[in-house]
Amino acid sequence: MRAAIFRKGKIVVDTLTEPKPGAGQVLVKPLACGICGTDLHARLHAPKMVEMSQFVPWRKAMDLSRDVVFGHEYCAEILEFGPGCKGTFRKGQRVVSVPRLIVDGRIEGIGYSNDNIGAYAERMLLSEQLLLTVPDHVSNELASLTEPLSIGIHAVNKARLEGGEVPLVIGCGPIGLAVIAALKGRGIGPIVASDYSPKRRELAARLGADVVVDPATTSPFTTWEQHATLSPEEIAGLPATIVPAAPLKPSVIFECVGVPGVIQHIFEQAPQNARVVIVGVCMESDQQKPMFAIFKELSVQYVVGCTPDEFAQSLELIASGKVDAGAMITGTVGLDEVADAFEELASPNRHTKIVVQPWR
Amino acid sequence: MRAAIFRKGKIVVDTLTEPKPGAGQVLVKPLACGICGTDLHARLHAPKMVEMSQFVPWRKAMDLSRDVVFGHEYCAEILEFGPGCKGTFRKGQRVVSVPRLIVDGRIEGIGYSNDNIGAYAERMLLSEQLLLTVPDHVSNELASLTEPLSIGIHAVNKARLEGGEVPLVIGCGPIGLAVIAALKGRGIGPIVASDYSPKRRELAARLGADVVVDPATTSPFTTWEQHATLSPEEIAGLPATIVPAAPLKPSVIFECVGVPGVIQHIFEQAPQNARVVIVGVCMESDQQKPMFAIFKELSVQYVVGCTPDEFAQSLELIASGKVDAGAMITGTVGLDEVADAFEELASPNRHTKIVVQPWR
Repeated sequence: MRAAIFRKGKIVVDTLTEPKPGAGQVLVKPLACGICGTDLHARLHAPKMVEMSQFVPWRKAMDLSRDVVFGHEYCAEILEFGPGCKGTFRKGQRVVSVPRLIVDGRIEGIGYSNDNIGAYAERMLLSEQLLLTVPDHVSNELASLTEPLSIGIHAVNKARLEGGEVPLVIGCGPIGLAVIAALKGRGIGPIVASDYSPKRRELAARLGADVVVDPATTSPFTTWEQHATLSPEEIAGLPATIVPAAPLKPSVIFECVGVPGVIQHIFEQAPQNARVVIVGVCMESDQQKPMFAIFKELSVQYVVGCTPDEFAQSLELIASGKVDAGAMITGTVGLDEVADAFEELASPNRHTKIVVQPWR
Repeated sequence: MRAAIFRKGKIVVDTLTEPKPGAGQVLVKPLACGICGTDLHARLHAPKMVEMSQFVPWRKAMDLSRDVVFGHEYCAEILEFGPGCKGTFRKGQRVVSVPRLIVDGRIEGIGYSNDNIGAYAERMLLSEQLLLTVPDHVSNELASLTEPLSIGIHAVNKARLEGGEVPLVIGCGPIGLAVIAALKGRGIGPIVASDYSPKRRELAARLGADVVVDPATTSPFTTWEQHATLSPEEIAGLPATIVPAAPLKPSVIFECVGVPGVIQHIFEQAPQNARVVIVGVCMESDQQKPMFAIFKELSVQYVVGCTPDEFAQSLELIASGKVDAGAMITGTVGLDEVADAFEELASPNRHTKIVVQPWR
């Protein structure tokens, strides 16, 4: 079978042996798989991921001298069942699943693994236990957004929202858009969103942002403040404090950029007591001045992935049509074009989400 | 009146004009005032505090070309009342207060301010509204610990403890000891604490740490893990997750060192889902690798100061004798020795808390 392989720092197309489903596993044909920002980061910073894996006991480090097949945002068709499957699915069904594979009772990752290949390939393995059926009216490409959208749902859940918060989303790439969709899905707003790219600001509005800002001309934090200002009645009802916190609604800031410097910028610009959720995956070393966060008593929640429940909620949200998730898909490619697509995605005004169709 | 003044990067003793109490203010004679780690940091990094103040609207930046009198951990005696005081206190009473001064209805800081002098002086102003009476059986020096101990109470409150957490305290200087005392006061444990200094480890045990570790020979994180291990029955009761989190009790880590590198070290060593509370005040730029915190889904709560309630609870905890807070006082000095005391405190094995007695 053919696959787009991460080999010695490059994406190359080559032939691999087709995997055989083990106990409780199914062989599938990937129909659509989005290219994730983490894939782009991983190609550039794979040794840093390996270094980090040593400190995260449940993550098996990649061996970069061996092949890795990326691709963890997939919709796939069931081809064959391994031993011990329960028969709850049938061949030809379209499914999605969290990027985990159960191997001999252990849970392993898919996509950043030498052993468990991702969906930039003609065939891959999934675990029957983790599969969800894709409703007929949802296209392969739309279904492949279940994983990235679930990241937004997870990030919003980890924000510990209590009601009344005004969210600010910094960066409207796929992750920022997923956060916006998740906030919209929960009816939280007004949502203020910021991105340098006009295309991405347009998408942010389409996905549910109420106010979009170009940070090159307007401070998203000033715009946020305008929308978070309390009425005189609301101010009168506040408890007395020693520290004269600004009379503003609570702030929750979603960092969806993932490059060095953004967290410190948030530390500088955030209002007192802001909750910051780090959804962007910065793989590089970053310079911060903790004192800024200390004197504002910021809380910073770092997040990754999603729970099985959140993954299922994401598929439901997509299927419901409540948010126009499909708007973020700006292109589709075959395996031979994956390497070029990685380059293309560096230009945020042309592309947001490119979906790989490994069968074409 | 005489004062130990922060002037052009140095601590010098000189004469200043005695302040006059404004509306709702009282003139007091500082009886005892602890030297805080933040004072030591501020002497070395004052320009960084000024830079940071620009981003914290409620903090008025110090003008470093003018005099500043530090000292915000005080017990004082009331000498005189300004206009408009309510008469709820009398002259000669011993009081403590949060380091804030109400000036024309606005709340301002005491101690890192050109206008509102701190307690390294023979006289200072306080706000009647913020005063608490010191019980007779509590010495001046012990009462001066109300402020630092309240920082520990505040940090523990901000940790959002839900029960069952095993706390790890990194650094057993005054702030770490305050956190230990606050945890002990709330009956939370076992408390694991870590410091390179034998003297501070001894104090940690005296203040309530159940396990003390020398990080030069033993990893505090490994020790923590030993004390956070769940029983087989507890493991069986856990909900299923996709990510195989280690079967451990929840972790809450208090960073009480405040120097560059410690936060990243915690990112590397912390268990999955740990809550990290940053109590140490790092004023320098710090290098971090966000990816470590992301893949462990750490939450980081930066804290500073306390609420009026927490300040009152701190005085109650001290007065109750439940914790041996006084053990952390390792010396007392007069105004002329403040500069030397700043130097002395750099040696953690000799001194923990030096209390200034400005009257002597």
